[in-house]
Formats: sequence, C-alpha cells, structure tokens
Amino acid sequence: MIKVVTLGEIMLRLSTPGFERFVQAESFDAIYGGGEANVAVSLANYGFDTHFVSKLPKHEIGQSAVNALRRYGVNTDYIVRGGDRVGIYYSETGASARPSKVIYDRAKSAIAEAKVEDFDFEEIFKDCKWFHTSGITPAISKNGAEITKAAMKAAKAAGATLSIDLNYRKKLWTPKQAQSVMRELMEYVDVCIGNEEDASLCLGFTPKGLDVNSGKLDVSAYETIFKEMMEEFGFKYVVSSLRESYSASDNGWSAAIYDGKEFYHSRKYDVRIVDRVGGGDSFAAGLITGLLDGKSTKEALEFAVAASALKHTIKGDFNMMSREEVETLVGGDASGRVQR
Amino acid sequence: MIKVVTLGEIMLRLSTPGFERFVQAESFDAIYGGGEANVAVSLANYGFDTHFVSKLPKHEIGQSAVNALRRYGVNTDYIVRGGDRVGIYYSETGASARPSKVIYDRAKSAIAEAKVEDFDFEEIFKDCKWFHTSGITPAISKNGAEITKAAMKAAKAAGATLSIDLNYRKKLWTPKQAQSVMRELMEYVDVCIGNEEDASLCLGFTPKGLDVNSGKLDVSAYETIFKEMMEEFGFKYVVSSLRESYSASDNGWSAAIYDGKEFYHSRKYDVRIVDRVGGGDSFAAGLITGLLDGKSTKEALEFAVAASALKHTIKGDFNMMSREEVETLVGGDASGRVQR
Amino acid sequence: MIKVVTLGEIMLRLSTPGFERFVQAESFDAIYGGGEANVAVSLANYGFDTHFVSKLPKHEIGQSAVNALRRYGVNTDYIVRGGDRVGIYYSETGASARPSKVIYDRAKSAIAEAKVEDFDFEEIFKDCKWFHTSGITPAISKNGAEITKAAMKAAKAAGATLSIDLNYRKKLWTPKQAQSVMRELMEYVDVCIGNEEDASLCLGFTPKGLDVNSGKLDVSAYETIFKEMMEEFGFKYVVSSLRESYSASDNGWSAAIYDGKEFYHSRKYDVRIVDRVGGGDSFAAGLITGLLDGKSTKEALEFAVAASALKHTIKGDFNMMSREEVETLVGGDASGRVQR
Amino acid sequence: MIKVVTLGEIMLRLSTPGFERFVQAESFDAIYGGGEANVAVSLANYGFDTHFVSKLPKHEIGQSAVNALRRYGVNTDYIVRGGDRVGIYYSETGASARPSKVIYDRAKSAIAEAKVEDFDFEEIFKDCKWFHTSGITPAISKNGAEITKAAMKAAKAAGATLSIDLNYRKKLWTPKQAQSVMRELMEYVDVCIGNEEDASLCLGFTPKGLDVNSGKLDVSAYETIFKEMMEEFGFKYVVSSLRESYSASDNGWSAAIYDGKEFYHSRKYDVRIVDRVGGGDSFAAGLITGLLDGKSTKEALEFAVAASALKHTIKGDFNMMSREEVETLVGGDASGRVQR
Amino acid sequence: MIKVVTLGEIMLRLSTPGFERFVQAESFDAIYGGGEANVAVSLANYGFDTHFVSKLPKHEIGQSAVNALRRYGVNTDYIVRGGDRVGIYYSETGASARPSKVIYDRAKSAIAEAKVEDFDFEEIFKDCKWFHTSGITPAISKNGAEITKAAMKAAKAAGATLSIDLNYRKKLWTPKQAQSVMRELMEYVDVCIGNEEDASLCLGFTPKGLDVNSGKLDVSAYETIFKEMMEEFGFKYVVSSLRESYSASDNGWSAAIYDGKEFYHSRKYDVRIVDRVGGGDSFAAGLITGLLDGKSTKEALEFAVAASALKHTIKGDFNMMSREEVETLVGGDASGRVQR
Amino acid sequence: MIKVVTLGEIMLRLSTPGFERFVQAESFDAIYGGGEANVAVSLANYGFDTHFVSKLPKHEIGQSAVNALRRYGVNTDYIVRGGDRVGIYYSETGASARPSKVIYDRAKSAIAEAKVEDFDFEEIFKDCKWFHTSGITPAISKNGAEITKAAMKAAKAAGATLSIDLNYRKKLWTPKQAQSVMRELMEYVDVCIGNEEDASLCLGFTPKGLDVNSGKLDVSAYETIFKEMMEEFGFKYVVSSLRESYSASDNGWSAAIYDGKEFYHSRKYDVRIVDRVGGGDSFAAGLITGLLDGKSTKEALEFAVAASALKHTIKGDFNMMSREEVETLVGGDASGRVQR
Repeated sequence: MIKVVTLGEIMLRLSTPGFERFVQAESFDAIYGGGEANVAVSLANYGFDTHFVSKLPKHEIGQSAVNALRRYGVNTDYIVRGGDRVGIYYSETGASARPSKVIYDRAKSAIAEAKVEDFDFEEIFKDCKWFHTSGITPAISKNGAEITKAAMKAAKAAGATLSIDLNYRKKLWTPKQAQSVMRELMEYVDVCIGNEEDASLCLGFTPKGLDVNSGKLDVSAYETIFKEMMEEFGFKYVVSSLRESYSASDNGWSAAIYDGKEFYHSRKYDVRIVDRVGGGDSFAAGLITGLLDGKSTKEALEFAVAASALKHTIKGDFNMMSREEVETLVGGDASGRVQR
Repeated sequence: MIKVVTLGEIMLRLSTPGFERFVQAESFDAIYGGGEANVAVSLANYGFDTHFVSKLPKHEIGQSAVNALRRYGVNTDYIVRGGDRVGIYYSETGASARPSKVIYDRAKSAIAEAKVEDFDFEEIFKDCKWFHTSGITPAISKNGAEITKAAMKAAKAAGATLSIDLNYRKKLWTPKQAQSVMRELMEYVDVCIGNEEDASLCLGFTPKGLDVNSGKLDVSAYETIFKEMMEEFGFKYVVSSLRESYSASDNGWSAAIYDGKEFYHSRKYDVRIVDRVGGGDSFAAGLITGLLDGKSTKEALEFAVAASALKHTIKGDFNMMSREEVETLVGGDASGRVQR
Repeated sequence: MIKVVTLGEIMLRLSTPGFERFVQAESFDAIYGGGEANVAVSLANYGFDTHFVSKLPKHEIGQSAVNALRRYGVNTDYIVRGGDRVGIYYSETGASARPSKVIYDRAKSAIAEAKVEDFDFEEIFKDCKWFHTSGITPAISKNGAEITKAAMKAAKAAGATLSIDLNYRKKLWTPKQAQSVMRELMEYVDVCIGNEEDASLCLGFTPKGLDVNSGKLDVSAYETIFKEMMEEFGFKYVVSSLRESYSASDNGWSAAIYDGKEFYHSRKYDVRIVDRVGGGDSFAAGLITGLLDGKSTKEALEFAVAASALKHTIKGDFNMMSREEVETLVGGDASGRVQR
Repeated sequence: MIKVVTLGEIMLRLSTPGFERFVQAESFDAIYGGGEANVAVSLANYGFDTHFVSKLPKHEIGQSAVNALRRYGVNTDYIVRGGDRVGIYYSETGASARPSKVIYDRAKSAIAEAKVEDFDFEEIFKDCKWFHTSGITPAISKNGAEITKAAMKAAKAAGATLSIDLNYRKKLWTPKQAQSVMRELMEYVDVCIGNEEDASLCLGFTPKGLDVNSGKLDVSAYETIFKEMMEEFGFKYVVSSLRESYSASDNGWSAAIYDGKEFYHSRKYDVRIVDRVGGGDSFAAGLITGLLDGKSTKEALEFAVAASALKHTIKGDFNMMSREEVETLVGGDASGRVQR
Repeated sequence: MIKVVTLGEIMLRLSTPGFERFVQAESFDAIYGGGEANVAVSLANYGFDTHFVSKLPKHEIGQSAVNALRRYGVNTDYIVRGGDRVGIYYSETGASARPSKVIYDRAKSAIAEAKVEDFDFEEIFKDCKWFHTSGITPAISKNGAEITKAAMKAAKAAGATLSIDLNYRKKLWTPKQAQSVMRELMEYVDVCIGNEEDASLCLGFTPKGLDVNSGKLDVSAYETIFKEMMEEFGFKYVVSSLRESYSASDNGWSAAIYDGKEFYHSRKYDVRIVDRVGGGDSFAAGLITGLLDGKSTKEALEFAVAASALKHTIKGDFNMMSREEVETLVGGDASGRVQR
Repeated sequence: MIKVVTLGEIMLRLSTPGFERFVQAESFDAIYGGGEANVAVSLANYGFDTHFVSKLPKHEIGQSAVNALRRYGVNTDYIVRGGDRVGIYYSETGASARPSKVIYDRAKSAIAEAKVEDFDFEEIFKDCKWFHTSGITPAISKNGAEITKAAMKAAKAAGATLSIDLNYRKKLWTPKQAQSVMRELMEYVDVCIGNEEDASLCLGFTPKGLDVNSGKLDVSAYETIFKEMMEEFGFKYVVSSLRESYSASDNGWSAAIYDGKEFYHSRKYDVRIVDRVGGGDSFAAGLITGLLDGKSTKEALEFAVAASALKHTIKGDFNMMSREEVETLVGGDASGRVQR
C-alpha cells in the first residue's frame, strides 16, 4: 500500500439535528472532523496506507477523535497525546435562502499549543509518497505555522509530493498575517488547491472579474490566475473547485485545473445538499487519489469532482464513498437508481 | 425599548417527526405556537419589549406554553392563568404533491372560555405603541370575539397602532359568522393583513380573477382590492403575502402592499420548505418591525417578505431569525454560503 | 366488502436513519414490507377485505411482521406460522447523484422454505375477487415458484382476476431461470404489470430503443411491446409505470397501459422523493383498485399513477394514502396547500 | 376461539420521554391506551377473540387508536366512528420519591358524547362469553353511564360473565355521583375488581385499618371487606390487586381474592418499575384469562398477579406478555436470566 | 416579589445520552447549567424575582444559555454580553460501581475573562434581599475572584443576606490558592454551605473521623466543625448536605445545620438517581427559600433536603420541582403514587 | 506491545431501544459484537496489540463490523473478506422479573461457511503470546469446529498460551454434539473458563449441589469440579464467573479460580444492570490481562471480576473501561462518586 500523510487539526463538530437553529437545539450530533482529517479518511477509503498527524488530549474526548479516524481506517499512530482541549465548532445546516452557520471555539486546542519537537517527522515521512496539509493549521497559532513548515520541509526531503489546500479562515488571521506565513511555504508545494478567495487572501492574488457572491463564475478568469500562480510559485498543478451557490440547498459544483500544459474545466454537477461541510476536502482527496493512481490530469480532476459532488449528499465531515461508487458517477450514471 | 402587544391563543402543536403521516407516528414533537404568539416571538427577537396576552391553565402544559414564550424573550406577565385546556393541533408535514395536514382539537381552551374581565386592558396597553391580533381569536368563541373587541378598543384609546391578520379559519366559523364579527372590528384597524381568500371570507370582498388553487397569481388584481378595502374601512395599509404553491416542498413567496399612495409588489423568493407553519405570522411581524423602525413602505415590505421567506426554512411556528440575518437577505445575498 | 388476496414475502427492512450510509448507522429503522404485502396494505387502506398469504416464524420478529399488517387493516389469518427466519434487507436512502442502496439477506426465509401443503388454497381463494402476486416469490426458491403456481391455479379456478408484477430481481435468479419459471405462469395472468427491464428479463421480451439508464423514455416503444405481449400471453391489460430518474432526489413518474383497445400514457408527476421503496407496489394497488371499482382503463391508470406519485413522499414501504387523498390529486390539485 | 368483549375509552397518552418532567419535554411519545382497551389487548395476546367497543373520530388520530388495537390483535369492528375528539392524557414518569403525574384532557371525547343508539349491543354480545368494563366509562359523562348500563344489561341477557374494575377517578366525579351510578350497576356484575380506595368511593364501603399512603397493607382487612361486598351485591368473586408503594421506582405487588368459599392472598412480587400505567388492567385481564381457562381461584389469581407484575416492566399501557412467559413466572422462575 | 440575585458561570453541559460512555457517544444532550444558575432556576421556580449575573458571548451559544434561564423564569437583564466562549463541560452518567464522569473545558470563558467594571453592582443589588454565590467563580480566574468579592461587598452594602456554597474544585485551583482567596470572602457570608471536603480545602478546616469514600458519615463530627466555623467566621448558619454514596445508582441524602443555637440532622432519603448533577445547588436553593419564607431552621433544612432529594430524579442541572411538590414530600408522602 | 489473538464470530446485534419488547420496536440499535470480538476490544482497551480473526462479507454490513472493531483499536488485518451474511441476533433488555431475550439468526454466516484454508494461521500466530477462543465458533458449523481446531493447534505450536470460554449454546448444538467436538480441543487449552452449566454440557461434567435457577450458589462445589477438570484435561487454570440472578435488573457477580494450588473465590459485587451482554467476555479479557500482566492468580481474578462488574453498566457488547478505572474498583472504591 502507498503511504500518505496528512497533518492538521481534528475538531469536535457540534451539529444541530436536521435544520434546527442553534437556539432551538436540545442536543448536538457529535461529529469529529477537520480539513486534513477529512482528506485522510477519504484516502483511507480509497485504499491508501493513510496516516494522520496531530496532537490530541489524553482524555476521552481526545480518544473519541482518535477512534473516529480509526473506525474509517486511518492510522493514528503518529497522533501525539497531550494538551487540554479538543477544538470545537458548532454548526447548523441552512436551507433555501438561509445559510449554514458555523461558530468556532478552537483557540488553545492541543494542536494549536503543540510544539515542533512533539513530532518525529523523519519517522513520519519515511517512505511517504504524498503529504497533504492546508492553510488552516498555520493559521491557528504561531506553533501551528512552525509545525506546518517543519512538516513540509521534512516531507519534501523524504521525497513526497506535497499538496496544500489554501483554505483562508478570516476568523483566524488577517490577509496580511496569512500572506507573511503562507507565501514562504509555497516553495515546498507541488499541488496548490484553492478557490478564488483563498488565492487572493493567502497569497495576495486578486482574481479579476469574479463576484463570489453572485453565484456566477467566469471560468476563463481562472486560467489566467492559475498560470500566474504557477509562474510565481513553481507549482506543478493549480486546482480549484468551483462552487455556484444557488442557495443553501442547491449548488452547482465543478472544478478547474492547470498542469502547466493545459487548462481543464470539469463536468458540472447540480447537487442537492445534505451536508456540504468537507466538500472541499473530499475534492482534495479525490485529486490526490487520481494523481497517485496515475490518471491523466483531466481524469484525476473528474474523479475529484465526482467524489466531492457525492460528498455533498453525506452527513458529517467525512466522505463515505468507495472508489467504485465514484467511478460509476464519473462514468456518467447520475440517475440515482436504486442499487440492489 | 418600544412596547408592543399581541393577543391570541397559543396552542400545543403535536407534530409528527420528519415527513411521517399521523398514522405512522409513534411520537409527536411538542411545539407551542399560534398566530399572535408567533408574531410576538419575532418581535421580541427584533428587540421590542413584547407582551403576549392570553389565558392558559395553571397546570404544567399551560406552564410549558408560557415557558416557550419566555425562552425567546416574550414578556408573559399579562397571561392570565386558569381554565382547563391548552388548545391542541396535530400537524404532519407534506412533501411534493402531498399537502401538509392539520387536525384541530382546540375547542374549550382556556382563552376560548376566558372573559373580558380576566384582563386589565388599561394596564396592558399603557405606553403600548403597537397592538397586533388576528381573525382567529374572534373565531374561537363568542368570548374570544368580545375579548378581541375590548382589547382593540383599549389599544386604540391608548394610542397604539393596530394591525390585524384576517386569517379566516373555515373549521371555526362560516363566512357569514365571520363577517358579522370582523367587519365591525375594522374601524380600529390601521394595518390590515390578509390574503385573497381571507379578505373575501372575513370581510365579504371577492378577489376577482384569482384561482387560488392554480398556483398562479394575478398581482394586479390586488391593487384594485386593496384600494377598495382602504376606501371602505379607512385602513392606513393593506397588505398581503402572496404564496404560489408549486408543491408542498416548493413555494413562491412575495407580498403586496398599498399605503394609500402607492402599490408595491415585493421581490419574489422561491423557497424550499422546511416548515411553512407560521410563515404568515413572521410576515406580519416583519412588517410591524419595518413600520415601527420608520422604514419606507417598500422597505418595510421587503423586510417582511425576506423575514418570512427565511421562516419557511425553520422548524416550528416561531421565526428564529435576527434583524441582521433578515437584512442580509434584503440586501440581496441569497447565495446560502456558509457563514463562518 | 370485496375480498382480495395477495401472496408473497414480507421482510424486515433495516433502514438507516435519514440519509446515513450503512457504515455510519448506529441504528436501523425497523420497517416490515415487501412487494405483495405493500400491495395488501394499500388495498386494505382503500377499503377492501384484504388477505395476505405467507409464512412467518412463530417468534417475535415473525409476530412483528404480522402486527405491521394488522395495524393497517390487512387480514393475516392465512399467514402460516413456522420456519426460522424473517427475510431481511438493509437499505440506505440516496440523494442527488448518490443512489439508494439495498443489501439483501433473505435466503432461507420461512416463506422460501415453505411448502405448497402449508396452504389451504381452496379456503384462501373462496369468494376471492382478485389475486395479486409478483415475480419475486417464484424467484426466492423452488418452493416459492411452486407455491406461486399452485396459488395462481387455485385463484383462477375460484374465479378471481389475476395480476402479477413481474419485478425481476437479478440477485435472485438469471434471466434464463426466470423465463423458465415465469413464462408458464403467464397463462393465468389477466393483468401484467412490468417495466421495460422486467418484461425483457422475466419473459424474454426486448424493449427496443430504450436506454434505461439515460433517464429518457420513448413512450411510443411501449405501445408496441404491450401489444406484442398481449398477443402472445393473452393478458387483458398490460401496464407499466414509467420512472425517469433525474437523480436520487427527483424523479418523473407516469405510466402506460394497453387494454386491448387503446394505449394510454398517463399524466406525469415530478416527485421530490422521501422514500421510493414500494412505489411500484402502490401503483399496482392503485390499478387494482381502479379496475375493481369499475373505473375506465384511463381513470384506473390515473388513479394508480397519482396514488404511487404520493407514495414517494411517504417513509416506509407502505402507502398511507386514502382514496380521497388520491382522488384529490387525480382531480388536479397538486398545489400542496395545507389541509386544515 | 372464545369471544370476549370490553367497552370503554381509548385515549391518546402523551408521555414525556424517559424521566423528563412536562416542562422539559420537547416531544411526547404517542401511546394509545385506556383501561378496557388495555384489558382487550392482553386478552387478544392470550388468544381470545377479543372485541373492543367504543367510539372514535373518523380522522387520523381516531384511526391511529384503532390501528394500535388492530396491531395487537384486537377486533375493532364494533368501534363506531364519529365525534370530534380522541381523549388525551399527558403523563410523566416519576422516580424514587417523585411520583408519576397525569394531566387529563378527556372531556367531550367521542365516546363521552356517544349515545346508546350508536351501538348494536345485540350483535355485539352475540356468542360473547365474557364482558369486561370499568368504573371509568360511567364517570366520563351521563352518556357514558347510560351506555355502560345498556351494555351490561345486554351482555347479561346474552349469557356472558361480567367483570368490572371499579377504578374511581376523582377528577371525573364525586363519591356521591359515583355511588349513585355505580351501585345500581352492581346487580349485573359477577367479578368485582377494586382496590381499597375504589370500593370505598364507588360503592360506599369503608376499608378499615388501611392507611393507603403508608405503604403498609393489612391484608386481613380485605377478607372482611370482600365478604361484606359479596353479601350485599351478590358477586361471585371479589378481587383486588394490592400495591405497596415503596417509591415511584419500586413497588410491592400482590393481590387478594374471595370466591365465596375461600380467601387467598397471592405471592408478592417486588417490582422495579419501567411503566406502571396499565398495571391494574393487566391484572384484570390475567384474572379473566385464568377464570375462562378454568383454572382454580388461586391459580387464576396467581396468573393475574404474575401477568401484572410483568406489566410493570413494559413501556406503554399494553401488557406485551405471552401466556408462556406469564406461566414461567408463575412457575417460580423470577431469576431474570437471559432467554436465548 | 422578593428580589434575589445569584452570580456565577452558566456552562454548556454536553451530556452523553442514557448511560453511554464518552467514547460511545454519537450525540450530546445540550444542557445549560452551572452552580449559581441552578440555584437561580430553583428560586424562580419557588416564586422569587430572581436575577442571574454573569457574562456570556453575543453569539447564539451564549444566547442559548440566556434562553435556558429565561425559559424557567430567571431574569437575565443583568447578564453582560461579550467575550468569546461559553464554558463547556462534558458529562457521562454512571451506574452501579461505575462513577459518573466530568471533563471540563471551561478556561477562558466569557465570565472568566470578564472585569469588575462590566457590572453595575449598585443597580444589580438595589432592593435585593438575598445574594448567593459559590466558591467556583473565584476559582475560575483572578478576574472571577475580583468580581465575586466586589459583588459580595456591594450586596452586603445593599443590605442583602449572603450565602455561599464553598464547592471546592480541584481542577481549578490548589487548596492553598483557594484558601488565600476564600478565607477573606467569609466576612461577608451569613450562610455558609459546604460539605466536609469543601470546608477543609477552601477554608483550611479538617473534618475529623470522616472517611469520605467509605460511604459512612459520622454526623456528630459535623456539629463540632460547624461550631468552630461559626466561631471563626461569624456565620449565622453553617450547613451541609450529607451524601452517602452507596453506588452511582443509589445514594443516601440528608443534611445538617447549625444556627448558633441548635444542631439539626435532617430526615434521610434513599434516592435512586436519575441525574445527580445540581443536587447541591437545589439544596442551597431550598435552604434560601426556607429561610426567606421565615421557616424555622429545622423546617428550612427539611425543605432543602426534600427539594434536593427530588432533584436527583430529574434530568439536567435544573431542579424542576414546585413548592407544593416539595412540601408534599416534607409532609411525609414518599410513596411515589401516581398523581392524577 | 504484546500480541494477542482472538478468533470467532462478530455479529450484528439488533437491540430494541430502552426496555422495549420486540413487538414494540420501531427501530433497533445496531451493535456489532460477539464473544471473542468482545474479548478483543477489552484487550485492545488494556493496551495489547490485539488481532481478531474471522470472516466477514465484503459488503457494507461486513465493513461496519470491521469498523466497529477498528474504532476501538482492534487490528482487523486478519479478517478474511467474503461470504454472504453477517450473523444477526435480536435482543431485548429485561427488567425485574422479565428476563432479557435473544433471538438468533446466525446460520450460514460468513465465518460459519468459511474454510480452514481461508486463514494463514502461521502468519496469524507469529509472535502471538495469547490466543483466546470459545465454544461458540465450534458450534456454529462443522467448518467452525475445524477452523477452531486448526487455530488452536497453530497457536500452541507458536508458543501462545490458550484460553477458551466454554459458552454452551443450546440453540446451536446438543450436549452430545458439543462433547464430541469440545473434549478433544481441551488438550490445547491452558485456561478453561466456564460456568457450571457450560462445564456440564460441553465437557460432560455434572456440577453437584447447584440449582442454577435458584439464584443461590454453593461455591464450595466449584472447588471440587475445578480440581476434577484440571486432573482430566491438564488445564493450568480453571475459572468461572458466578452470577446470582436476583432479577433481570440486579445480579450478584463474583468468580472462582483454581490454579492447581489454591482455590479462590473473589469479592462479590451487587450490580445494577444496564446491559449484561458481554459480561462473561469482559471477565475473560480481564483474566487474560491479569495473567499477561504477571499478577498473582488472586489479583488477576479480582481484576477480571471488577472489570466485568463494570461491564454490566455499559450499553453494548464491548467493555469500555480503562485499566485505571478497573484498578480503582479493585482498590475498593465502589462509591460511584462523580469523577471530576
């Protein structure tokens, strides 16, 4: 099995049942997830020897986060145990014109307080073929930024391919702060994943002619941006999912990629949303899978888009789709007929 | 804080879970609500010093209705305690071509059996700026009609603005009975809210050219009706929400208003329905808020329509939206993007 | 009351809650259902003296299946008690591009192991006006095939009208096996119900010009097939529901019938799906009801299509709609307005 | 099968989940039950051809009550459909020193408003071997009293054995009212079931030396009372369950009977309570079964006590125990070892 | 109405359903509670004009805490809004030999970060008759200690009676830290509530001859301690609940008080536990009520013990018992008979 | 980490919620468990490198069983994937005099149909220190018996210590069949675990002076039996848990062991039962842990008894207790005081 590693934070998501608003909730669904953890679960699902690197408290809430990953086949041996808190975010699911809403309570979590020395990156990246992380971990704390950088350096040295999902979080830092940290990480990155906002905020790029709230996307604008990004940072692939938010219930979903030679815009899916959290992560995992499998750029992209379109129909952060199920959709069967 | 008062019945709604039919239900969600109570909760949400006037039994079911209102910030000091029953209605939620269904069991409730003397309307309407009620309370019993009339008289005397939601209920009375009671209440009314059916049944108006089951609405017909209504009754505003029932799952939702000078038809929202009960009440509350805030007629209407479009996405009778959230939708962002 | 009989298997359906995937489920909804049992419940709902014939273990799981039928008015006196297992199927509900999925665990169930001698068909079909079965029971085992044949023979002898829903199940047998059993049963059949795939697989017909996965149906092709089928097998009616799978969430739903004189294609409904399992069974029950009621071929078909369009909005296998509710939809009111 | 009939009211019990108090409940379990209906379900469970006589509205809540009975094998053909309301009672389950609590909302229910002419008692009691009713139905309304009397007369005329459970309800009538109605019904009664309070309040007897709140029972006092009751009213059996309320969680449970010859006090069970509602009804049904089976007085009593001790472990009003399970406990195995 | 004030933290308790362990939980019940908030709800329940003072974030989780208090009649006007976090604690319910378990995540909550200047204590304590707080708020942070001291000073100046529940929390501070803060607060305290451990840890007293894990209590030891405490600190009353932990399921529950004249040991209740969290708070509230009502020391103690014995049967932190219900138990009826 | 292996069947347990009887259940909790799988989870919990050997279908129900094990840290690499069925058992939880009940539907499961050749026992037992299995797997099928024998042989050859839990299942085989298979397996066994019934039925021993339904146990009888068993079969340890079934709610729980030198009877716990399924398995795991840890015979037994007493308080088959929690109880703290 091919060894892959992701690094980041896994949080406890406290999610109101059904479409309940926070002030109505008498209970919360307890879901463990987080960007890179979500990617790890998808990769384990697709059959890779997947390792998640993080730090979690020794108590039972920390253990529950570990267990959620183990349940779905992620190797948790590299998770350091210690610290006080599992980061939390509260979420409620929107519908129609009412947006989904997230309230973060993640400060001072175990991984945000962790130190570079907590991790034996040489051991972690031994025989590792791919390392994925995101712009969230560097944003949670100075320590998070240092750990991310040390991990990327070690992964590169070990010969892994590196992907990053820029994922700008405005509650965590300012664009200025983000850019001061993120720009220098780019030298290690092979595959840069980011939508139009993230590219602008994390790296200082300004997508032109895009009104991100309009629900309309001018795809051709991406070709220009992607090429410019590749020139400046030397990425091997620049990729972005493209979401058209018709409403909180219905989205258009596609993606674009540039591999230095050609620019592709994928098939677009109209998705009826069950839970869109983790949609981008399932896209990243689909892309990594496609590229590790040796698919062509276009095929890898179509696999990633189909995988993540399906994620929108699944409750929770993790994408519970098999390779076969994704390939069926890539193959064109979106009829939704009962599989008996 | 501006003092506002609503008067009416708050019932126990026994609602089947999800899309279950009555005969399938092994449990009922226990939701307390009712037209004027729903208006009160919205007004409290928007920051008014809101009082709900009614009568409820001293037992724990009565207390639970009080508690539901207190939870969301409504002042319940004017609720008289006594009588035997909390009125009940059973509801199941439809989907697609299957309509939602309501079975009433509200006869002999505490408020239907209450007497005018139970209430100290002078105290209640002291410093009150707005009084809202509906055509339901006068319909539940002779006592209900007397209480409503006494309240409207006292509110008027106290200098409040009066609004009424006509809300014809065919299970409670005949058009003839309704008109004999309702027409004489109109002299107190400043703002008359009613859809095309209600105007006809409660007040004897016949909307022309409207086929209420067709799902098609000829908006221009409303202008004529509204002007005629204003002429006859001396309203300051005539308003109606306009529902286009494509199915039990999807509706078009807009509204029209006439303020003696101009007739406006609002923006129309296509709503994916979570729970449409209380949609009209959230509209009334939005309108009252807009007018109390000193918005223009058109702006007040747009606030009301946006507020009530959002209500359709919320489980239960009460509209759990803040001013800010409503204004965001009025401002044009219906994209439903996650609010982090 | 008119006596009607259906024969088949009632299983325990273990259904994940909401849209959960199997691997996420911590509980299963326990739903008892199965093709002919579903038809029986609909017929009981419509007021017929409905009997379900099967075999179920004496233990409490068997008893629960009996109770589910009794609850909805089906007479269970002809259900033989014995054997070891209640057949099981696991189901998860799809959404958007993710199909619903079914895993069967039905081998060696009590009815699959039952013998012809377990049943007193003379008593069962005494005064019976209609007998309905399907192509599933003959497929579950050799015994199932023998029981079906014996029942059809006895029903015919007793003067009942016979209908069959072909319902090919590829997990249970091959087309070759199916045809060897099913073709000879056709001599007893008056009303043959089957979609394009079933006709091909069970009876060796090949629908031309139909791509069943494309979501596009060429209705005219059915006219040809239906006429050919009638010629060869001497059916009085050939009928099929016509599903257009836009996605797992939304389907087009209509039907076609040929009665030896005319070919009709019904009105088409666009359905937002709550639970599509049992859709075909509710269609069969609607058709039987229409024909037993003495409706015209076209009216019977429209009743059946409306009934089964409504089924798609109801959780579980059974169609919980009354005659009145179906007739309202047939009458053209698909607005979904609240019924108070 | 032996035909037995019970007559009374079946209500909707709205029961808070777990140990929640009314003011905490966000949902209610929907349980259909009522004294005589509970007896009917037990009798159906034990294999009798059991009929329940009542009146229920035509709407779906009335239908749900019918369905609850059918589910567990009770014949509902004698239930008249009409009227407006299904009677309701709210219940919360106590624990330790906190008592369970019931709030009634049963006035004006369909059966309370029914008329003697609604029922064809000649048809109902044809071939009936046993008729059971209680002191509740005569208490709910003047009509209820008339219907009960007419039924008892007709049952007696048809040759049935008659049992009554006195069941005094202080919310429904005063002792004076009760005695004016109940005393004259006694002439039809063969088996009189009542605890010490009921005998006093319904029939004017005063149990001596019993402090019903003390949790201590002087069994010998019952022998005197039972003999006096038999003398005055000519009963064939006088019976009472004997509850020792240690707390809301734990009770002692036994019973006493006098058959004109001997007085027996049964074995006493210490029961850990899951749901004690319907305990008395399960006792009545056990006794009827024992006597109909031809058991000795003592054996019949032990069967009844064991059956009702087991009821206390079952959620809901209905006793879901088979004959075999009751006999096992009568036989002395109270070890609670897992039955595999 | 008599005005009473409590000050402290209200947290979000994330409680596993039933007896589930943390690592099993797929959801958490969302319960808002905390020592002084629990006292406030009880006092509001008993009819006092009760105000809770704290600081909570403006977001919806903060609002939900406010709403929980309002629902049960607590005035929340003195709650300052601001800060980032609602403190959290996770809880699982033990049984038999398995103890209940609590994991705190309360650092940096809004109240822990609040400042004395956030509160207008002059306004808050105007006309206040009683002020209650605990040893938890001073423990959560330096700010918490300052706020508590300022509040006590202001309450004393306003003429209120002051009570404190010592409530030592070893996760929050060391005995040394506790004593340095708590000892100097004692000068304001009229009523000191604390069990044997708290007195030792917070104030430096050492209860002699008590083995707190043995489940055996030597009540006479308390008389000595209470007298010594009163001498040193000048309390008017020294009180403690006395828990005998037979197991996580069953406890003995009584209390002792010394009022400067006499030492009383209350009646002891054996309680079957539903949820013991908040037991001590319900005791404090019962005592305050008894003393404010003008009961004798002994009567006040018995009211407090009965109230808190009943709390153990109620899910959640809040004690949902009315005065009447508590008085019934004080009056000696612990039979748990159904209240109809 | 020390490598341990268990072999057996993991089933899907369909468990009714709360105390519901089968015929009341509208849903089932989905719990994966089985004797040896339960032992494996405990051993993983205690920190061993634990492997479970079995065969499970490739479909999602099989995968869910794998995931349940992975979640709690069991290595599932030796689970062969294939076959059709996951074995099922239905369970309902008794209370008081009503016993818990189990209905099996496990025939033809993947492991029952598996073959010796499916497993590479040499690889499986490489470096394995302990192998545990039970008398259930040999009972499920001839294949199961062969697989068990092959595994025991290989484990012995690899130098592992072998334990077996006799666990006679009367639904699976007769005593005669059991003895013909089981007796010859004994030569490999080091530690024989079995209660009085199992010893008799599986191995032909007759415990004297024990009435297993009486709830009374004569411990001294065990000493004799254990010694005789050791003599005949050459075991190193003979062990049995000793259950006293006071009722389905309360049990006495202790154990006895003989190590060739001394006979010990452990401390006895009175347990209030939440879920007793898996109690014996948690005992076996506790014993294995104690012996692997190098505890004395007596200490190992006390650890095992405490661990399994605690299991009775945990829902589901798996024992979710840590070493520390077990040791606390062994240390004598059974007070159940809240752990904060």
